Amino acid sequence: MNLEEKKVSGEVLYRGKVVTLEKDKVQCSNGKEAYREVIRHSGGAAILCMDADSRVLLIRQFRYAYQEVLWEIPAGKLEKEELPEQAARRELEEETGVKATNLTYLMQIYPSCGYTSERIYLYLVRDFDMTSVCWDEDEQMEISWIEYDKVKEMIRNGIIKDAKTICAIMAYEARREENA
Amino acid sequence: MNLEEKKVSGEVLYRGKVVTLEKDKVQCSNGKEAYREVIRHSGGAAILCMDADSRVLLIRQFRYAYQEVLWEIPAGKLEKEELPEQAARRELEEETGVKATNLTYLMQIYPSCGYTSERIYLYLVRDFDMTSVCWDEDEQMEISWIEYDKVKEMIRNGIIKDAKTICAIMAYEARREENA
Repeated sequence: MNLEEKKVSGEVLYRGKVVTLEKDKVQCSNGKEAYREVIRHSGGAAILCMDADSRVLLIRQFRYAYQEVLWEIPAGKLEKEELPEQAARRELEEETGVKATNLTYLMQIYPSCGYTSERIYLYLVRDFDMTSVCWDEDEQMEISWIEYDKVKEMIRNGIIKDAKTICAIMAYEARREENA
Repeated sequence: MNLEEKKVSGEVLYRGKVVTLEKDKVQCSNGKEAYREVIRHSGGAAILCMDADSRVLLIRQFRYAYQEVLWEIPAGKLEKEELPEQAARRELEEETGVKATNLTYLMQIYPSCGYTSERIYLYLVRDFDMTSVCWDEDEQMEISWIEYDKVKEMIRNGIIKDAKTICAIMAYEARREENA
């Protein structure tokens, strides 16, 4: 079945710091016309970092859109012309002072495929050195090391709600099963 | 540590069909001022539906923001004043012709906490009757029943990239472990 939608016309409604908003007129594969609102985003990188005792590096950060402090793995936006792996290394060190000596690609996820173009690239870090944090002026967070089984319990209990964090744990579980 | 950010002022830049875009000036907990771009979204409901043979109901749909046909569990936006569970039942039936006779709440996820307020509510359906599909005029998809272990392989292999689908499988795995 042909499912593709073709762009008929489009306009950029807003260019921001984090998101750009576009509205396109499209032709659906059944011939009907429709409008699609699209959030353009440069993409993100997120890091599941675990120490030798299988403790997971989590941060707590106030997320304005939800008006809540959330538990998350370290993550950040790709800078212009930055590769996902570079962004992962940079964000991990800036946010938590952890300098990865080894980094494994886990998977990419599409966080909300109905309206955003954002891709989040997930990495695993098991080997690292400690340096010091370097937060942006408008960035504040708490850093914790939480036992792996406790993190899974926090997902089960709904304490961890952030999709990239849940997906990173799922990706890690899948790797473990594969190697078992 | 106080991590909260307080709204100083705000404006609505765009009110759309799927998203509303706001830009707020905030005061960070360290006293600094910053701007936050926020996508307001009514929320979504998504359904992990499995038959008696542990086959998972997946749809393939063209997602304009990614210009790709994606594998996903059935899902949709909450209508005005609709409860997540109502939306889950409605979307499942409209998209796939599956009428849930029993529905279990799994978890809620925050798909991309840096800029969207969207919450996606995940449900599990094991008991259902078959009716007929009722797609929106601009909606077209393919429906498949895929073996559970194959779905997990598709996540491992990067064929399934949609975050809500991966999180729903993670939530199901977590329940299985808890009940084991």
